[in-house]
Amino acid sequence: MSALPPLDAWLSARRDHVEAALDRFLASLTEAPPAVTAAMRYSLLAGGKRLRPMLVLAASEACGTQLGLDPEQAEAVALPAACAIELIHTYSLIHDDLPSMDNDSMRRGRPTSHIVHGEALAILAGDALLTEAFTLLAREHTVDGVDRRALAERQLRAVRILAEAAGAIGMVGGQVLDLQAAAPGAAPLDRTSLAAMHARKTGALIRGAALAGATLAGADGPMIDAISAYGVSIGLAFQIVDDILDVEGASAELGKTAGKDAAAGKPTYPSIYGLHESRRLAAACVDEAVTTLARANLGGQLAAIARWVTARSH
Amino acid sequence: MSALPPLDAWLSARRDHVEAALDRFLASLTEAPPAVTAAMRYSLLAGGKRLRPMLVLAASEACGTQLGLDPEQAEAVALPAACAIELIHTYSLIHDDLPSMDNDSMRRGRPTSHIVHGEALAILAGDALLTEAFTLLAREHTVDGVDRRALAERQLRAVRILAEAAGAIGMVGGQVLDLQAAAPGAAPLDRTSLAAMHARKTGALIRGAALAGATLAGADGPMIDAISAYGVSIGLAFQIVDDILDVEGASAELGKTAGKDAAAGKPTYPSIYGLHESRRLAAACVDEAVTTLARANLGGQLAAIARWVTARSH
Repeated sequence: MSALPPLDAWLSARRDHVEAALDRFLASLTEAPPAVTAAMRYSLLAGGKRLRPMLVLAASEACGTQLGLDPEQAEAVALPAACAIELIHTYSLIHDDLPSMDNDSMRRGRPTSHIVHGEALAILAGDALLTEAFTLLAREHTVDGVDRRALAERQLRAVRILAEAAGAIGMVGGQVLDLQAAAPGAAPLDRTSLAAMHARKTGALIRGAALAGATLAGADGPMIDAISAYGVSIGLAFQIVDDILDVEGASAELGKTAGKDAAAGKPTYPSIYGLHESRRLAAACVDEAVTTLARANLGGQLAAIARWVTARSH
Repeated sequence: MSALPPLDAWLSARRDHVEAALDRFLASLTEAPPAVTAAMRYSLLAGGKRLRPMLVLAASEACGTQLGLDPEQAEAVALPAACAIELIHTYSLIHDDLPSMDNDSMRRGRPTSHIVHGEALAILAGDALLTEAFTLLAREHTVDGVDRRALAERQLRAVRILAEAAGAIGMVGGQVLDLQAAAPGAAPLDRTSLAAMHARKTGALIRGAALAGATLAGADGPMIDAISAYGVSIGLAFQIVDDILDVEGASAELGKTAGKDAAAGKPTYPSIYGLHESRRLAAACVDEAVTTLARANLGGQLAAIARWVTARSH
């Protein structure tokens, strides 16, 4: 087995493929009103780390290696899902930023969608991104050397995984809990409620990304269980680090207004556990994720991605 | 072959099944925050004719009869999709009613979602309904006597059909065109643009309903083409009748504020073609739909449903 390429090179090549595929997808919507595709494009191609698509591709590669897929096949089976999850993530940012939600005017260093396109078109661009994610997931898809019917079954499972991760028991549910906690007069979240809110709002889609990639590569049973546990751990690590960055005021790294959660009186990991203990917790999550992978003999870039998630906070 | 049951009895039995399945689905979301399921329930179980679910089930039955399914199998393969399309339709109503869109305060004789739950929760309830539609479509589904893998492939096709019908080239695209036409200073829509807007905003999902039902029953090729043409015709008939009802001020029948489109200066079929010609056009669409069915030997309730759609205007 050849040595792994360094994470940076791996990410950079995969990001290029995802950006190109996203661009092709938007360009394929020729029958849509130009106003809506322009608004979709504005938010979708605004840069960003593409963490979730990278997780889809890394999980597909790690599981695919064990299941007889070569790296090209592993990427090909999972690329549409990698794009789809970025559509879902982007829609959630547009809707979260709306005046009636978090009322944010800046995102990734640029004015938010409703500032640029107006509220109505921002809502509709979000709706379109969410809907088109499922077009992408369900498109007829053939990959050389992979049974078409087996792949169709896996695609259907990926639809279910991502719909559940994004829906009422997942991401949307988490946003509702967040709104309720921020309402005037609401009791502050305790540790358990904070973790439960984040597990839904951020964690569910991160776990869903890894699960969808693994599923599309053909993973089942114990391999899926390991990927699921990995996803839960790094989802939590990601949120803790996000909270730390918010406190440390690293607006540039965060790509949004720092200190905002603290200013809004929202509970964060540092506000509940302190900065030192928050860093320790995030590192423990990463250790847990890496141990889980090792136990399941899952290699590839998943461990490096877990470390990358927390490296942001140093 | 036994005589068809009268449409009313057929609809009434199917509606009961759909209402019960929708209720069971909402009740299954036990891990979701109660606030979001309550908001979903408020709009989803608000009555209504359930036209789109009825089209899913009628198309499945009509095609299934030719493909060796008995009526119970035809209903069983299509019931989750019948529910899913009502979730999609309901989400679109909630978002259309928002202050930044049509700013409607009444719907089906009750205050709209954002009036009752606030704007943020209304947006999120809509997002959840749209997302959960795909959970429903992709759920593992077994029907006695139907090959599980074949059904999974058809489910994946139904996901694609409904995502395309609801997305940027379909319903959301139509809503964007509608918004643009209603903007201050916008040129009034001509006949072609009006038809194109409606084909997306209302027509795409109505056609998608019929196509999804047919697909889940196993239809392919010419049968799908006939169902598609049928769906286009009754989608247009439905919109013309809706416009006629708006002019005639039949608020009770319409379930929303009548005269609103005319008051907003929106072009309608009666405002462009006159009332008499609009009625003739709607009737011609129904004739066309019925002829298409007959040519493809498709029986069942589809023809009766086409007539029911326009009967509302008399």
